[in-house]
Amino acid sequence: MKKDLDNLMKANNLDALLFTGPAQHNSPMYYMTGGGHMTGGDLVKKRGEEPILFYRPMERDAAADTGLKTKNLAEYDYKKLLEAADGDHLRAMALRYQKMLGDVGLTEGRIGLYGKMDAGDAWGVFSALQELMPGLTLVGEGPNSVLLEARATKGEAEVERIRQMGQVTVGVVGAVADYLTSCKVDASETLLRGDGQPLTIGDVKSKINLWLAEAGVENPEGVIFAIGRDAGVPHNSGEATDVLRLGRTIVFDIFPCEAGGGYFYDFTRTWCLGYAPDDVQALYDDVYAVYHQIISELEVDAHAPDLQKRTCELFEAQGHRTIRQDGKLQSGYVHSLGHGLGVDIHERPRFGHGATEADRLAPGTVTTIEPGLYYPERGMGCRLENTFWVSPDGEIELLAQYPLDLVLEMGE
Amino acid sequence: MKKDLDNLMKANNLDALLFTGPAQHNSPMYYMTGGGHMTGGDLVKKRGEEPILFYRPMERDAAADTGLKTKNLAEYDYKKLLEAADGDHLRAMALRYQKMLGDVGLTEGRIGLYGKMDAGDAWGVFSALQELMPGLTLVGEGPNSVLLEARATKGEAEVERIRQMGQVTVGVVGAVADYLTSCKVDASETLLRGDGQPLTIGDVKSKINLWLAEAGVENPEGVIFAIGRDAGVPHNSGEATDVLRLGRTIVFDIFPCEAGGGYFYDFTRTWCLGYAPDDVQALYDDVYAVYHQIISELEVDAHAPDLQKRTCELFEAQGHRTIRQDGKLQSGYVHSLGHGLGVDIHERPRFGHGATEADRLAPGTVTTIEPGLYYPERGMGCRLENTFWVSPDGEIELLAQYPLDLVLEMGE
Repeated sequence: MKKDLDNLMKANNLDALLFTGPAQHNSPMYYMTGGGHMTGGDLVKKRGEEPILFYRPMERDAAADTGLKTKNLAEYDYKKLLEAADGDHLRAMALRYQKMLGDVGLTEGRIGLYGKMDAGDAWGVFSALQELMPGLTLVGEGPNSVLLEARATKGEAEVERIRQMGQVTVGVVGAVADYLTSCKVDASETLLRGDGQPLTIGDVKSKINLWLAEAGVENPEGVIFAIGRDAGVPHNSGEATDVLRLGRTIVFDIFPCEAGGGYFYDFTRTWCLGYAPDDVQALYDDVYAVYHQIISELEVDAHAPDLQKRTCELFEAQGHRTIRQDGKLQSGYVHSLGHGLGVDIHERPRFGHGATEADRLAPGTVTTIEPGLYYPERGMGCRLENTFWVSPDGEIELLAQYPLDLVLEMGE
Repeated sequence: MKKDLDNLMKANNLDALLFTGPAQHNSPMYYMTGGGHMTGGDLVKKRGEEPILFYRPMERDAAADTGLKTKNLAEYDYKKLLEAADGDHLRAMALRYQKMLGDVGLTEGRIGLYGKMDAGDAWGVFSALQELMPGLTLVGEGPNSVLLEARATKGEAEVERIRQMGQVTVGVVGAVADYLTSCKVDASETLLRGDGQPLTIGDVKSKINLWLAEAGVENPEGVIFAIGRDAGVPHNSGEATDVLRLGRTIVFDIFPCEAGGGYFYDFTRTWCLGYAPDDVQALYDDVYAVYHQIISELEVDAHAPDLQKRTCELFEAQGHRTIRQDGKLQSGYVHSLGHGLGVDIHERPRFGHGATEADRLAPGTVTTIEPGLYYPERGMGCRLENTFWVSPDGEIELLAQYPLDLVLEMGE
């Protein structure tokens, strides 16, 4: 949680954190500012002190709304800095950082860097800044940063927002199920729209986007609604022109976030409309069994990679190949069991490679559990995903209820 | 245009360009790949050669859809690289880049960096890579990059997409105007919703988002719908709980993009519902006069900063203070006349500080023209904005027609 930052900074020998970029759709700045219409800016947090937000003058109202200590970026005369930098913008930005950091008393120590930036801009600005301020050590912490460690655990207020997103998500999923099962079907088992034309994935996705917008949330990463062979490729998002037919596997993975780029939810179901062919039912039964076995074994402080290992064991016992046997596997169980979730769709804990001792289902963590099997060459895939919170007293809470059923019975 | 990249690379002494990050909502990768559901990846373009896309194995279908030459990132054993890097992810990524660049024959020369990345990750990865490959010079080009210069000019296919976004935009603006003018009004001149409650900015923004979603487009940067004093602060996006009343200035600035983070449109009107008080009408008349004067003077190859200077002259002649007189100005004409627009909402040409000789209305450029006046202390602001294309034969084309009227007459 945010209140852990000072201790984490101490443990990781960081004297300050520097955040940059817009407040929306930029998780580090969103987390520190609470969002708001700020198209750019910087935030400096020294260890043991309140953060200071450097805002653009036209965005002074949004900056004031954050309730943070603020400073106006217009106090740094960019025109003069650009002249001093011979017209080199990245050097001018470095000169401005030098002044800003000096103004808050940061001329030495280790300072971590966070926030969305252009790769070339980051390289140019921070190389120049490191040269200008040799007493300072700029640090790229990577995926084990103090920020991501603090964010891994959520308080009740944060979880309540994720729960709300869960309610929106299952509401939209239910609307999609109702819509699909109410469609007429022609002799070739193709679903038809109201106008008699075949219903396509593009049509369904339009409705999903509309219903998400009606609920006041955003869908910045799109939605996966993939049929048949496409359902057998985990990140294939589905072909817009494909038509919906009875008896084919549909993987429906939806991961919207609050308006402005806040908290996410993540949810997947695998459906067959009308009926399921035997081989699809068998695939589903295997995933369902593993899902339930893993859920029954979830415990507070479980090490996420152990859960991934256990999932591989279970799938292998069913006769499937798994990613721990072959890192390049494309058929069988080919991904990680889950991932933490918050103001980014992928947060800690990590279940796969690169997980550390800290990647646990600690109290406060929110994580997806999403076992799946993929056989693109057989035209099928199956994934079941729910999102869970580990409460402060170690209970595992499913954040939004929705049936796991494979077959959606068509209406009359 | 993209075909200019090789010549620009030659002129700027760049041997290769390295792009990184997701293909959506990441303009450099979007521009090079055409978008698609790819959550990460890299693209290398050597001078005089076709680009090569390095894709994540789960996203092989989307990678294939780009039609680009591709390589599978799974060919680089990340687990081994991470071991070689003693568990340091950023160093492991640098080691992977070293191999990837080696595989495409890049071990020396100057290579530009582009694409959204975490600031700390960029600093960590590229510091390590620069050390690993001393023969290579990593370059952060900043806002005068070859990429942004190529993107500044658009071909007919790109402009057609911006025109389409313009049609969607004015369609939604028209729907908002129709909705507002059809509302009932109570004795205090407050607009009422169908259920008799006061109509709020939050209500209007929900409808805007819904209508944009219905049109199949995205609104990643939000919308400005600001009343009264808030309208006097250019980037204030409006208070959700504020109610709409007759006779108050509304600044409505809308800038949606194609689904997945493609081409944008940008459009602003200033409205008074029912009637305009005299001081608002006078403010509007000044902005309207300057808008028309500037439009009448637009010429192919005009230097954008000259147009900004001319705008300041016109506003000063009307008695307003301008940003060229005071860089920190908050009342009067406080921003730039416009900006280029494409797969980012702000592109070249630039009108304000930092513009170069190249920031011109060259054939192929798309630019907004948006003069405005702001008096927050008087509870008012006014901005008028349209988007224009300079055609290959030097004609200035307004990309979407919509009336500039201040007063929207209320219905019966």
